[in-house]
Amino acid sequence: MREQLIRETPAKVYLVLFSLSFLLNIFFFYQHFFSRHLSLRIGSTVSDLSWTRHAAEEAEAVAAISCSSHGRAYVDGVLDNRQPTCQCNTCYTGTDCSVLLSNCSADVESGDPLFLEPYWMQHAAKGAVVLSGWHRMSYATTDGFKSLELEENIRRLHTAVGNAITHGKHLVFGTGSTQLLNALVYALSPENSSSPASVVATIPYYSMYKGQTELFNGRDYEWEGATAKWRNSNKTNFIEFVTSPNNPDCLLYDSVLGGSSVIYDHAYFWPHFTAIPEPADGDVMIFTVSKLSGHAGSRFGWAFIKDENVYNKVSNYLYYNSIGSSQDTQSRLLNYVKVILAEIGSNSDIFEFGFNKMRKRWQRLQALVNSSSRFSLQQLSPQYCIYFKKIRDPSPAYAWLKCENEEDADCAEVLMKGGIISRHGTKFGVSTQYTRLSLLKTEDHFEMLLRKLKPLVAGSDENSSNISSF
Amino acid sequence: MREQLIRETPAKVYLVLFSLSFLLNIFFFYQHFFSRHLSLRIGSTVSDLSWTRHAAEEAEAVAAISCSSHGRAYVDGVLDNRQPTCQCNTCYTGTDCSVLLSNCSADVESGDPLFLEPYWMQHAAKGAVVLSGWHRMSYATTDGFKSLELEENIRRLHTAVGNAITHGKHLVFGTGSTQLLNALVYALSPENSSSPASVVATIPYYSMYKGQTELFNGRDYEWEGATAKWRNSNKTNFIEFVTSPNNPDCLLYDSVLGGSSVIYDHAYFWPHFTAIPEPADGDVMIFTVSKLSGHAGSRFGWAFIKDENVYNKVSNYLYYNSIGSSQDTQSRLLNYVKVILAEIGSNSDIFEFGFNKMRKRWQRLQALVNSSSRFSLQQLSPQYCIYFKKIRDPSPAYAWLKCENEEDADCAEVLMKGGIISRHGTKFGVSTQYTRLSLLKTEDHFEMLLRKLKPLVAGSDENSSNISSF
Repeated sequence: MREQLIRETPAKVYLVLFSLSFLLNIFFFYQHFFSRHLSLRIGSTVSDLSWTRHAAEEAEAVAAISCSSHGRAYVDGVLDNRQPTCQCNTCYTGTDCSVLLSNCSADVESGDPLFLEPYWMQHAAKGAVVLSGWHRMSYATTDGFKSLELEENIRRLHTAVGNAITHGKHLVFGTGSTQLLNALVYALSPENSSSPASVVATIPYYSMYKGQTELFNGRDYEWEGATAKWRNSNKTNFIEFVTSPNNPDCLLYDSVLGGSSVIYDHAYFWPHFTAIPEPADGDVMIFTVSKLSGHAGSRFGWAFIKDENVYNKVSNYLYYNSIGSSQDTQSRLLNYVKVILAEIGSNSDIFEFGFNKMRKRWQRLQALVNSSSRFSLQQLSPQYCIYFKKIRDPSPAYAWLKCENEEDADCAEVLMKGGIISRHGTKFGVSTQYTRLSLLKTEDHFEMLLRKLKPLVAGSDENSSNISSF
Repeated sequence: MREQLIRETPAKVYLVLFSLSFLLNIFFFYQHFFSRHLSLRIGSTVSDLSWTRHAAEEAEAVAAISCSSHGRAYVDGVLDNRQPTCQCNTCYTGTDCSVLLSNCSADVESGDPLFLEPYWMQHAAKGAVVLSGWHRMSYATTDGFKSLELEENIRRLHTAVGNAITHGKHLVFGTGSTQLLNALVYALSPENSSSPASVVATIPYYSMYKGQTELFNGRDYEWEGATAKWRNSNKTNFIEFVTSPNNPDCLLYDSVLGGSSVIYDHAYFWPHFTAIPEPADGDVMIFTVSKLSGHAGSRFGWAFIKDENVYNKVSNYLYYNSIGSSQDTQSRLLNYVKVILAEIGSNSDIFEFGFNKMRKRWQRLQALVNSSSRFSLQQLSPQYCIYFKKIRDPSPAYAWLKCENEEDADCAEVLMKGGIISRHGTKFGVSTQYTRLSLLKTEDHFEMLLRKLKPLVAGSDENSSNISSF
């Protein structure tokens, strides 16, 4: 039957079919082997890649290295056999970070914002940034040392989130908000005056203000400690740091001395960490990308400054300190600010993501701490948020822990003995009764914190790190 | 004849050919339409891309925007109709930078190292860097705030070039070498002494030392001007900046006061700009990527420090100043340092490229200036270079121009009237007879300089910018 069909079908038909098929093969062959390295632009999309291909392949290969869920490999990581190795979260080890170290402390000392790392892993395509070798080699970019596009998108973001009124204010970029703190102290200090400005903050305060002011030790300013001390004095000439929400207790603060030189540090004034009751409108307001997108390693912050003279002085300081901030970083962060803006209100809203994560952590920690009277936490209550347009639960970046028992006089020490590395109350200008726990690190850090805290709350001082069940 | 052949070839043969060709069609069809978005790893190379594809396509599309040869478009450029616009070199305008502005001054004021831009454009694939959204979000990297891999490659590079002995010295990273200048002044100053350290430099000196020291105005140091003033004094406690090669005159300098606190600024101690007679071996040596790879916008510098106490103080300063430097930049520059290292001695040696370019510019400028007696240049002579292993011609980064005529008392002013923006001699602590011309900007900047200088050399003070022939 089959033989018959072949014999009956004229050879011509087969020849035509073969010819067509052959032509199609020539087309595919060309496409497959020759068009790969041609940059065929269809509309505005490039159908294949040339000079970016190798770096893109490398980035994907490194991202595909398995580090369990307890680490990650980076393109610039330490090499082993020419391949970047996994960088594991604290307490994890092994080539793929799958081994949990016994007897390892929960390190919740620093404010490393790694709780947002999964957000960017989930949005890999949106977060990828490609820089050419000749990208922005000049000192100058589109507006002096500042990217105009980044400036515009930062302003748009504040308007969209509703956390700051930026209209009529100048914007400066810093190498982290850290660089801007002293730049502003400098700019707000009197020049060549016989009495230097007094730099102050309300306790508990972020230790950087004191540390920086004392270390740089300029002739025109000096650290004068807590605002409480100066409340009823005749002294003027204050530069007051107001951190709102405050680091470490995450409450919204306002100026205590009410002078003209107030630096509002709004690093944590994002819906991840606090309700936004109304937009901030200070004459000097600092923000940082570290607590917005989670990119602490990028070292990028910004400040809005109303007064032109102060703005000029800050700009001058930034020129003499570092000739502006990295343009590689400005380029990368422009992308992230755009992504964050574009996703507002969507399923991929970073604030929704951050808020949910921080709220859940706070609730779990609170439930644990409240199960005994040994420790207490700062009092935070639900509040109306103009971003989420509803009353929302607290979701602080830090727990401000107090040891309630007299025998636990040094709270950080008590925790340390129990296998928890926290930040001493004394660093914030208060007594050893208090200590700060960072809640914004990785899931691993937070879980280890709960695990170590559990026996302490229950009244045992023994380090539970040898318990093998997790 | 053809008809006959068809008839004589059995249908079976055509059927077999068609079947084979059809199978090949199926294979190609699958490859073409289905394997595109699968990340098939062959060995360690990824045959196609997923999450990096969009960003890579965008980077290539932007790089393909035509800006004549007088500008370039960047992914983070100012948008027009959602597409980044060309950023043109000074004196060029138009959507594709093809229009030469009439009456435009040659701006050779700044030390923008754009002479290396063509190098990275020619090595596009090697220069491409891809960062994921979750790349190094933490404050900490592989060695505190410092990338271990970058540290190792920087040390390797110095050894390969032979311009510094790094063994037994600590390494710190700064946001540009600029940040490190004051960090070192701080670290070398006595603490709480009744007599602050005296910060000095030899004229003509880089103005940043004075500007920075005066602006930060720390209690433990003060700017005390030129070393010449202190040569025969009993004063001790100096911090001496030694810039070698010197900015602006590009000569190799050594310490004048010979105290224990000498900061060697070796920003220009690379084969682009000078012969390397022997490796530098100072106790404190500063370098910057800006004058090595040309990436000034990245803001990255480093210092080798022998004394552990000084190293610790500098590290502390950098923590309080900016909590380290951008990790995006560290990652990008790791790639460039590796490329530079890998190409040493090859056809793509960046030092060969940089040296040839700078030497040619110097020769052309020298020929022009020497054609009359109105101006003179610093005296530079050929010197043996251990990198090139031969006697090589001068190739300075700057021309240190002197107006020889009495009536040209303000040399920068004379040039300004002739359409050349230079850097005033007074900025370097010397008289107005001198001015600095930057030779390391783009080809366009250099050509415009020659064009404007020509009539001045010939004795005419008229701005020649209206001459339409170029």
